[in-house]
Amino acid sequence: VEPLWLPYVVHPPLSQGHAAPVLYAAWVEAGYVKEEDLLNLRKIDCPLEGHPTPKLAFVDVATGSLGQGLGAACGMAYTGKYFDKSSYRVYCLLGDGECSEGSVWEAMAFASHYSLNNLVAILDVNRLGQSEAAPLKHNVHAYQERCKAFGWNACVVDGHDVEALCRALWDAEQFKEKPTVIVAKTFKGRGLEGIEDKDGWHGKPIPKDRVGELLDKLQSKNQGPEKPFHPKLPSEDAAPVDHTPILLLTPPEYKIGDKISTRKAYGVALKRMGDASQRIVALDGDTKNSTFSDIFKKAHPDRYIECFIAEQNMVSVAIGCATRDRTIPFASTFAAFLSRAYDHIRMAAISQSNVNLVGSHCGVSIGEDGPSQMALEDLAMFRAIPTCTVFYPSDGVSTERAVELAANTKGVCFIRTSRPDTAVIYDSGEKFEIGKAKVLRQSDNDQVTVIGAGVTLHEALTACDQLAKEGVNIRVIDPFTIKPLDAATIVVCARATGGRVITVEDHYKEGGLGEAVLAAVGEEPGIVVHQLAVSQVPRSGKPQELLDMFGISAKSIVAAVRRTFAN
Amino acid sequence: VEPLWLPYVVHPPLSQGHAAPVLYAAWVEAGYVKEEDLLNLRKIDCPLEGHPTPKLAFVDVATGSLGQGLGAACGMAYTGKYFDKSSYRVYCLLGDGECSEGSVWEAMAFASHYSLNNLVAILDVNRLGQSEAAPLKHNVHAYQERCKAFGWNACVVDGHDVEALCRALWDAEQFKEKPTVIVAKTFKGRGLEGIEDKDGWHGKPIPKDRVGELLDKLQSKNQGPEKPFHPKLPSEDAAPVDHTPILLLTPPEYKIGDKISTRKAYGVALKRMGDASQRIVALDGDTKNSTFSDIFKKAHPDRYIECFIAEQNMVSVAIGCATRDRTIPFASTFAAFLSRAYDHIRMAAISQSNVNLVGSHCGVSIGEDGPSQMALEDLAMFRAIPTCTVFYPSDGVSTERAVELAANTKGVCFIRTSRPDTAVIYDSGEKFEIGKAKVLRQSDNDQVTVIGAGVTLHEALTACDQLAKEGVNIRVIDPFTIKPLDAATIVVCARATGGRVITVEDHYKEGGLGEAVLAAVGEEPGIVVHQLAVSQVPRSGKPQELLDMFGISAKSIVAAVRRTFAN
Repeated sequence: VEPLWLPYVVHPPLSQGHAAPVLYAAWVEAGYVKEEDLLNLRKIDCPLEGHPTPKLAFVDVATGSLGQGLGAACGMAYTGKYFDKSSYRVYCLLGDGECSEGSVWEAMAFASHYSLNNLVAILDVNRLGQSEAAPLKHNVHAYQERCKAFGWNACVVDGHDVEALCRALWDAEQFKEKPTVIVAKTFKGRGLEGIEDKDGWHGKPIPKDRVGELLDKLQSKNQGPEKPFHPKLPSEDAAPVDHTPILLLTPPEYKIGDKISTRKAYGVALKRMGDASQRIVALDGDTKNSTFSDIFKKAHPDRYIECFIAEQNMVSVAIGCATRDRTIPFASTFAAFLSRAYDHIRMAAISQSNVNLVGSHCGVSIGEDGPSQMALEDLAMFRAIPTCTVFYPSDGVSTERAVELAANTKGVCFIRTSRPDTAVIYDSGEKFEIGKAKVLRQSDNDQVTVIGAGVTLHEALTACDQLAKEGVNIRVIDPFTIKPLDAATIVVCARATGGRVITVEDHYKEGGLGEAVLAAVGEEPGIVVHQLAVSQVPRSGKPQELLDMFGISAKSIVAAVRRTFAN
Repeated sequence: VEPLWLPYVVHPPLSQGHAAPVLYAAWVEAGYVKEEDLLNLRKIDCPLEGHPTPKLAFVDVATGSLGQGLGAACGMAYTGKYFDKSSYRVYCLLGDGECSEGSVWEAMAFASHYSLNNLVAILDVNRLGQSEAAPLKHNVHAYQERCKAFGWNACVVDGHDVEALCRALWDAEQFKEKPTVIVAKTFKGRGLEGIEDKDGWHGKPIPKDRVGELLDKLQSKNQGPEKPFHPKLPSEDAAPVDHTPILLLTPPEYKIGDKISTRKAYGVALKRMGDASQRIVALDGDTKNSTFSDIFKKAHPDRYIECFIAEQNMVSVAIGCATRDRTIPFASTFAAFLSRAYDHIRMAAISQSNVNLVGSHCGVSIGEDGPSQMALEDLAMFRAIPTCTVFYPSDGVSTERAVELAANTKGVCFIRTSRPDTAVIYDSGEKFEIGKAKVLRQSDNDQVTVIGAGVTLHEALTACDQLAKEGVNIRVIDPFTIKPLDAATIVVCARATGGRVITVEDHYKEGGLGEAVLAAVGEEPGIVVHQLAVSQVPRSGKPQELLDMFGISAKSIVAAVRRTFAN
């Protein structure tokens, strides 16, 4: 089912996604969903799934992993207030149970810090979690105090009193200084005898023999409005989106042999993409002077969002910013810390988000800061995201093109950047495509195909030069994207080098470049792949010492090539 | 370097791990680290790394990914108060910047909910983050209000006033109702002219030409105590740890053909392990009636910790509980939601933690709840944890043995469980070992080796039976552990079946069983591997419909085997 987008109208995230049937029923009331479709809930041919996804026109972000809706709502509200400068307001329905998730409080802090007075959260305090009562039970004032301490305007209402709710929503619109949370005390299963406020009914249908009786009672109590309710439609005062591809205004300005880290090249590239389009925005988690997103910030301060040290919320905000194609966000931090947001990234795929994530400081090559700062599982993480394109550029020119391609690519994009300065290896005019590798060294008598990326590609080139002096030629491939991987080029090269392939990566052995190559050649008989990768928790040390210690330096590649011969 | 454990003494987590040099210097003052070793900071042969790790005897949990220390401290304090019933107190030093991490607030809520009055947090509000000021700057009262709203006793002190700090620490010990946070206002680089309270000095050394001058000034100001400070040692009133292996008291009680889900078998197994040892404890994130950890809770309520919907904190608490071998924790939730804690799991490996994590509801076979609830990247995630053993049991008997083995295995253990009921396939006396696969079907003329696990193993057995009726034999392997994988058995079987292998998994194609098998046979020429796996974001539907739709059912296996012949 293709999503039928209703552009310029924000669809409130239902952060407690398991309440999906209520959302669907509301859209029946609004006249958009057909009543009879409700009976196809969760069936394999019906878009009314167990939790909301953007297969439905009225869903902008998928929910179902709790505590993620408010962060996305923050991104929508930030976009409305600061980028679109539009009148639209953003509403988010939160459950009480999900307020145990820290991500809710990251979003709370963000919303008040940026005075998102166009954002309203409705917190449904129904006391009951899935398996027992939530920790604060019906203590609505404790919720109110927490929200206030986090800088929100917070009121308490009886959540079953529709008039009180309407008044609170109206009040929220008048309150101009802060975001507002309406803490609504409710009883789960209200009005259902033997069910209301009781444990053991989470996700359970009403027993068939009680449906008639309970429905009768409900209908006698809730008469509903005499005529159908027609809320005022929001005014569509946000500019339409220009969908023209966004291209660098001039080619990259590097010369072969220039030394620049790919993390710095990322900052330069993003700034230049920002020159080309107002839709490019940047986010960072207090690492902008390390990821070099500060280069973008200096040039385009109004399009930079400082998310502080809250990576989950940064990703959620970026997802919110990307909804309805309002912006093309690039969110950066150390790649290691994107692991903090893995659940959010997983949900980004289900949300059909086009968010771009950039992780710097990958691998042991960062050196002295030690293992906590080294991303060694990020390729595994992002490769397993079904909508994800994984870029792993190896020099300034390819980094610039990776950023340009990512901005124009649907789905989640991940760009892995490195800390050390490395030589520019491509001419500024070189063309790059997703899923197209570059063969950097080849001859008629190559003995092995070596595939590296980032610092290990440079190590492979060094190894190639050393071996060449001994009269041994190897073929060296830069995959450029790890997903999709250019299987065709790899297979051709592998066959040309006697079926011998060596992969070398600054990543753990599992799920990274090596396994991507193994999967690409897995159905080809006669190709053997030897993996060089980090195989244990690393440590502090100098970058080159660590590349040697963990067997992914030029020295290790030369030794592996020699072993190939010995066999 | 082997850790030199100092059992029974809790080593306060330095949550802001980048302040490691201060921690090391403090241990010099305490007489444990040699002063001259400080000059080897971050060198490749020195355990004084860029961020603290348990290579050092005074470090129980590694830090360096921010916002994780307090959760671990909660686990230590919970253990001290409720399991050890001991007098030890737990202290945690927090940075202000890291308070943007939601995980800090998950831990705050946890500590007050469980009245951890033996826990003290010292919050160093120095205003400055890495790249700019933290959002609340020097507003110590805002921090105090937030902590109070989250149920803590919170006081504000001048963090440079040692006497005031001592008094606050003493007061904290007298306060019996709540955990205490000491909000300490400080100035980064205090007393260093031109550096104090200024941006741009994070992680930067003092310029060489200023060192002499600044050191002189500091030394003239800080005279230090006249005689070395000897704090009172904590009394060691916790019972010594019994390191005897913990074995099931009786064999599993299943009969071949019994129907039970592996998630339920997990609950039964954990309860039975709890019968065998007091050290077994369970944690869950409000999913205990789905993961079946509630079977443990019912039998051993005093050893169950409800962590509510806060998976990051649940993992941190479990890591804290596991320190100094005080307990053997098993923390469970839907496997999809363990992605929420990936950064914490990554850090668990660096912490040398023996924590056990159990993820239920893996794959599309959960059915109607839809993609947000389906773990399809968890194998990729856990395989890339270097210290991790990955169990993927396929019936009740093997699940019970997986739990028993996990309890006695060092490093992180992950057990992947499934929602649907499946048949018991092993005799209750069957022996299981880590890294040893079971060959379930074999004949002298097997055409293909099929490797499945969990529901897909049962699909493979069904396919085997169907094909057998056509006179086609296949070999079927249950790997039991995905990491380490039994490469030897797989290679032998692959060779016996003409080099033809089919993997079938309820997981995305990347990083899971298929790629594990590819890596295992990658250096063997003549083996080809065909992967059956989920290749796009799935949806709601009935389990069997989804297995068919995503090509991992018996039907798909039969078709894949037939295609193998056609080639």
